[in-house]
Amino acid sequence: MKALKIPEATIIRLSVYSRYLAQIKRKGIVTISSGEIARGVGVSSAQVRKDLAYFGEFGTRGVGYNVGELYGYLMKILGLTTQWPVVIVGAGKLGSALAMYAGFLERGFKVAGIFDNDPRKIGQKLDNLEIMDVHKLPEVVETSKASIGIVAVPAEVAQEVSDMMIRSGLKAILNFSPRMLVIPDEVVMRNVDLSVNLEILSFYLGAQKS
Amino acid sequence: MKALKIPEATIIRLSVYSRYLAQIKRKGIVTISSGEIARGVGVSSAQVRKDLAYFGEFGTRGVGYNVGELYGYLMKILGLTTQWPVVIVGAGKLGSALAMYAGFLERGFKVAGIFDNDPRKIGQKLDNLEIMDVHKLPEVVETSKASIGIVAVPAEVAQEVSDMMIRSGLKAILNFSPRMLVIPDEVVMRNVDLSVNLEILSFYLGAQKS
Repeated sequence: MKALKIPEATIIRLSVYSRYLAQIKRKGIVTISSGEIARGVGVSSAQVRKDLAYFGEFGTRGVGYNVGELYGYLMKILGLTTQWPVVIVGAGKLGSALAMYAGFLERGFKVAGIFDNDPRKIGQKLDNLEIMDVHKLPEVVETSKASIGIVAVPAEVAQEVSDMMIRSGLKAILNFSPRMLVIPDEVVMRNVDLSVNLEILSFYLGAQKS
Repeated sequence: MKALKIPEATIIRLSVYSRYLAQIKRKGIVTISSGEIARGVGVSSAQVRKDLAYFGEFGTRGVGYNVGELYGYLMKILGLTTQWPVVIVGAGKLGSALAMYAGFLERGFKVAGIFDNDPRKIGQKLDNLEIMDVHKLPEVVETSKASIGIVAVPAEVAQEVSDMMIRSGLKAILNFSPRMLVIPDEVVMRNVDLSVNLEILSFYLGAQKS
């Protein structure tokens, strides 16, 4: 285990920096300062330097960072130099949208399978993916070597689906259901209930009104 | 303005606590301890007490919190005692899934309109919503009194759409595009690029492998 004390907010910003550097790299720009990165993504340059400092020394004083090097290093830190097969359980509206979301593939996440228990959905196609019977999940996890599972089912069955994912060997879960899931310590999880993000906005809007 | 120094992580947890309390309330349970809330949502009881302490004194020592009262109070803090009309620009897969996402309505967010610039999409129905021409955005924002806009368009046009939303009078933006948006100080924004959440998982999985 390494680097587990890194704040999650730093990891999120590294992901944002790496996307910005990818844009800059495509423009053919070779060096960049922390100030330029900061302006590009909307944080302070002290923040950029602090985030990068967790991972050692980067850049040359007065010259800045080499764009390609820093980009490559960030992608390595983020674990994005290898491809991650991902499985999705729940082929409803959200799960189907996620299965066809091009942004995942760009960053190295490949949907290895999407599953449902509804006979009317099983066998249907989403782009090139065929919706599979959820009973095939363990087999697909094994053959695809997937580590990450996306829970895109209603709250009532989310725990059951998560348990099944973990029994199948998945090590990380992205939970889109509004249910908090109980998982073993060795499994990592992110809750991304979409409403929460709207509620952060309503909190701030409410605060502005007062 | 009030309470703007509250950490965002606290607001996210308040949202989670309020959902958990809603479940507990439906079961008819009248009082609950910080320890029970903590176990229910997977944080420490000290964290629960600390989060609630930002907003004053709650509960009775040795008795705990009144479930209904605390739930009501959290919903008020989160700005969820009123309904928030929301508009979505981009009727692609993600935007369409969001428009039909039942979880929003449960928490007081009502989709007042979904917009696109593609003539093949305009006029089509998503459940009871008709996809509208994006030129009608200002009119719908005005009549619906919407404050929140969801950006669900490709990166290349995200800034343009965000500018249009702000000109139309929206005060808060939920950005699903992988582009960082430049917005005026008085507008609040959340970036919820879905890949970022997968990258946090790949970071932790990568760290475990090392």
